[in-house]
Amino acid sequence: MAKNQSSVPDTSRRSERSRRAIYDAALALVAEVGYPKTTIEGIASRAGVGKQTIYRWWPSKADVLLEAFLDLSGQAAEAAGQEPYTIPDTGDLAADLKNVLRATVDELSNPAFEAPSRALAAEGVVNEELGRRFVAQLLEPQLQLYVDRLRAAQETGKVRPDIDPRIALELFVSPLAQRWLQYTGPITYEYTDTLVDYALHGLAPR
Amino acid sequence: MAKNQSSVPDTSRRSERSRRAIYDAALALVAEVGYPKTTIEGIASRAGVGKQTIYRWWPSKADVLLEAFLDLSGQAAEAAGQEPYTIPDTGDLAADLKNVLRATVDELSNPAFEAPSRALAAEGVVNEELGRRFVAQLLEPQLQLYVDRLRAAQETGKVRPDIDPRIALELFVSPLAQRWLQYTGPITYEYTDTLVDYALHGLAPR
Repeated sequence: MAKNQSSVPDTSRRSERSRRAIYDAALALVAEVGYPKTTIEGIASRAGVGKQTIYRWWPSKADVLLEAFLDLSGQAAEAAGQEPYTIPDTGDLAADLKNVLRATVDELSNPAFEAPSRALAAEGVVNEELGRRFVAQLLEPQLQLYVDRLRAAQETGKVRPDIDPRIALELFVSPLAQRWLQYTGPITYEYTDTLVDYALHGLAPR
Repeated sequence: MAKNQSSVPDTSRRSERSRRAIYDAALALVAEVGYPKTTIEGIASRAGVGKQTIYRWWPSKADVLLEAFLDLSGQAAEAAGQEPYTIPDTGDLAADLKNVLRATVDELSNPAFEAPSRALAAEGVVNEELGRRFVAQLLEPQLQLYVDRLRAAQETGKVRPDIDPRIALELFVSPLAQRWLQYTGPITYEYTDTLVDYALHGLAPR
């Protein structure tokens, strides 16, 4: 902190501007050249800051990128008029799940999100350490929202009590993820609605 | 063919040996350096053949790799004592699906399969053209086996007639794929068995 004593009074505003420039640069760069070729030097140069500014705030490029993605997800949720990190509980489980999956469909096709997310996801497939950090810090907190919503549904008898919510959510989340990651099929609202219906009611006759 | 008239009589055996050396070299190389840095020259050098030998048989490195993977999958199925490209129909849908998913669990953790598959899958995430070829030539034919098995189950009334089998299969295939691609959770027989039970019977009470 001593280093900042000579700063002008708008330090925090300047810091916020630098922080955002660094996030934007990191996301743009990883989208363009991929994770392995993204460097702190490259991010600093593109953001118009010194690389020491980045090293002061983040220990590695992985940390910059993960924070930039957290920020991006938060912004996307706000833009969609949602609270980040909640799934509404209207009492209609199918409708609530369909709504949040439709919002995910929109996010996945948003160009600001798609290219950097693909670059990070691709690296995670072959770089187990980064893949696990990506999951722990970005993906798992989002999946836990489904766990919470499914637990609430178990309490009102809408989901069977013997179901493990952490596995159950994968029946509708993972198909969408695989179609996005591997181009295994088109991604539409109709598709994600169908996944929810199949998962809740099952494939076997009732 | 005229070029081969001076060959000794074991041409086809020598060709078969070269072909296998090329497959092995391509899979090893993509696992080590990734798809972008894998070249026809590198494959030829590692396989101990001239690069013209490769160009005579395949138009591009993508073609060599896709064929090498097809060959690898066929070998894995044979090693597991299965017919490649069938899912048995014993009349017990849950048991049949669980068996084939358990075989997939084994295949995914086989080191000969894992590293090159991850390299190709990672490239497919950021390279849409390669991703779509990978799916069309390697993944979709395997998924169609589930479509066939689910259709047979519809005919015997074990799966509801209004279900789209191509979407339904994703309820148990995609969670396994996502756990493998993104390290979102452990991969065990118990897990894949659970996926089949949840998908067939649904999450809602019956």
